[in-house]
Amino acid sequence: MRAGPARANTRYPKETELPEQLKSPQRGFTPAEFERRVARAQKIMRDHRLDALFVTAPPNIRYFTGFDSQFWESPTRPWFVVVPLEGAPIAVIPEIGAPEMALTWVKDIRTWPAPFPEDDGISLLKSTIEALPRRFGRIGAEMGREMALRMPVSDFLKLRDGLGSSIEDGSPCLWQIRMVKTEAEIAHIHYICQIASDAYEALPSQISVGESEREAVRKLRIDIARRGADATPFMPAISGLGGVPQIVCGPHDRQLETGDILFIDTGSTFDGYFCDFDRNYAIGKVSSEAERVHEALWLATEAGIAAAVPGATTDDVFRAMSRIIEDAGAIGNNVGRLGHGLGLQLTEPPSHRIGDGTVIVENMVLTIEPGMEYAPGKMIVHEENIVVTRDGSRLLTKRAPRELPIIR
Amino acid sequence: MRAGPARANTRYPKETELPEQLKSPQRGFTPAEFERRVARAQKIMRDHRLDALFVTAPPNIRYFTGFDSQFWESPTRPWFVVVPLEGAPIAVIPEIGAPEMALTWVKDIRTWPAPFPEDDGISLLKSTIEALPRRFGRIGAEMGREMALRMPVSDFLKLRDGLGSSIEDGSPCLWQIRMVKTEAEIAHIHYICQIASDAYEALPSQISVGESEREAVRKLRIDIARRGADATPFMPAISGLGGVPQIVCGPHDRQLETGDILFIDTGSTFDGYFCDFDRNYAIGKVSSEAERVHEALWLATEAGIAAAVPGATTDDVFRAMSRIIEDAGAIGNNVGRLGHGLGLQLTEPPSHRIGDGTVIVENMVLTIEPGMEYAPGKMIVHEENIVVTRDGSRLLTKRAPRELPIIR
Repeated sequence: MRAGPARANTRYPKETELPEQLKSPQRGFTPAEFERRVARAQKIMRDHRLDALFVTAPPNIRYFTGFDSQFWESPTRPWFVVVPLEGAPIAVIPEIGAPEMALTWVKDIRTWPAPFPEDDGISLLKSTIEALPRRFGRIGAEMGREMALRMPVSDFLKLRDGLGSSIEDGSPCLWQIRMVKTEAEIAHIHYICQIASDAYEALPSQISVGESEREAVRKLRIDIARRGADATPFMPAISGLGGVPQIVCGPHDRQLETGDILFIDTGSTFDGYFCDFDRNYAIGKVSSEAERVHEALWLATEAGIAAAVPGATTDDVFRAMSRIIEDAGAIGNNVGRLGHGLGLQLTEPPSHRIGDGTVIVENMVLTIEPGMEYAPGKMIVHEENIVVTRDGSRLLTKRAPRELPIIR
Repeated sequence: MRAGPARANTRYPKETELPEQLKSPQRGFTPAEFERRVARAQKIMRDHRLDALFVTAPPNIRYFTGFDSQFWESPTRPWFVVVPLEGAPIAVIPEIGAPEMALTWVKDIRTWPAPFPEDDGISLLKSTIEALPRRFGRIGAEMGREMALRMPVSDFLKLRDGLGSSIEDGSPCLWQIRMVKTEAEIAHIHYICQIASDAYEALPSQISVGESEREAVRKLRIDIARRGADATPFMPAISGLGGVPQIVCGPHDRQLETGDILFIDTGSTFDGYFCDFDRNYAIGKVSSEAERVHEALWLATEAGIAAAVPGATTDDVFRAMSRIIEDAGAIGNNVGRLGHGLGLQLTEPPSHRIGDGTVIVENMVLTIEPGMEYAPGKMIVHEENIVVTRDGSRLLTKRAPRELPIIR
């Protein structure tokens, strides 16, 4: 068993305890990379018979432009980027964003003074789209799966009804574009995975029996920031005797007690890219039943990693894991799938589930996330992040220890 | 001038440097508070002739249910809450969220196994809405200003076209409900404002000339977390000689140089509620011109705070500030307004701008945010958060010092 010593006095790790600095990838991406992204996107758009994509959501805008801002947190002003079938992307954005957009590779930046509820960019967006060459008469928008349109729907409908071309669901096209990562994107995800792996590994030395879930999360958040993450938008944590009832909410003020499993998950980011993986800790010691289930899930993760190879489907990856989970006596799993894509979003297509049917290809980045409820309200879930290579898959995270780390 | 000593060796503040613990408000809200919120909402819904509101966005779901999760970061599964004209809210949510929703005051929780792209909750939501009493034949949805529908638009249109009632823009109704805060909401916002005020005040002792914007942000993020904030979704920072070109992006790797203004803004949260205010720091020393503009903005803030009284309009508050800004020689301001509402969102209606016309009433929480560009690319922006009381307005933040704090 790997276990950190209990150090009730050490509330936060000291500077000197940090491991050797990981090598941080270059922030941002070269203009050449954006040109390649757009050229590839335009090929895919042609297959989908779209004259243009117009996007509003932060990950899509960032994918095509490199534009970064935490101002997305304010829903007051919509932002638009139009990717035409030929030529470079056009930014149609509020004035407030122009100085920063001018630092990206985007040259064609059109602005309006916002907020202006009477016409918040809609007529400017409309004229921008209408000036494009019309070949298919179809424009793709973020209308479908695992995306949300970041603009008032009323404005979207007004635009749609007044446009010469039809607006179609562009999400299948956008996901085909984004699901396969570039080398530089993979390097970003790898880096944040390594930061979070190190912080998870150091956690047992920072917390003790009797501390609360909330305090554990606060310490881990701070440690991940110190190690070089930009932000931690996602860090649910929950504890329970031998397992947890759910894995997406918390922390609460519940104190860690002997016999508990402490579950923590994180989506932290570096330069816009997410990791998404969890870790489990035994508080003091756990039942042999919980240890048995933990072992089965560790093996299911191995099977999932081995199954995620080019040519296999997400259904195959699901089956490789579910076989082991079923044999271990699963009574359920409210998560609905056993892993998914990630990148500029915490979760992206595809999903490892029966019926998803996505064929896995090189340079997809995926979570492998087997979980099971083995008794009512007692769930354990494991998770790692991988990248698919020509020869199989490669871990981006540092593999979780086979035996549960112990917090004393 | 207030200035912290330069302490190049102190990379992070020590535990003992924290001020006396602020008194944290009780987390969450009582069932009685939610009953009052819903009763008031239902009166407003009647005025808007709506049989129900259905909401999908985290702040709206949290407002009516108290449900909290960082899982909103995953756009894969939609969540719905239906607030009928009579009776209690109904949650229509993915199975993965049921255990946590069961901990809220909501009793009627309906779930489906998600993700299930073939029908991700739409038929369940439809039957839930259709079973409600029909009086006006109108259902309100988040179709309008400063809101985004958190579900695929394709699914929304399918629902709309298949429903007996019409779906209307519910955002004017929702904003009328949320724009006026309860005492408990105000206590939450006050607490996070105090945490961020203290951290801003301590910043000059933690950073020095020559450090980067990015490092300044990292230290402030960590300090705000240590002081009790749950998260910091928004912390742009930028520096520039005598002023900054924009206020919503960054940090970058730019090093702080003598003569710079360092601008930092933050939307940090406690229990779901945001602060939203900035601070400016002089690096070494700044020009007398920058000091003059800083003084004018400090006075404009005073004027804005004094103008935000019950019965005044947001236009009046704008005018009170803009008069001083114009006199000080403003050549522009790409922000588009001089403050706004806040609460469960970083920015909410109303806006202090000409034409907004919102009548200010007791218990609105507002930012007072005068800013001006005084030379090309040189902008300075001040910001405080206030609550409107019967007798005027009360600061929720600790007022920024009249003289620029200096970082050495």
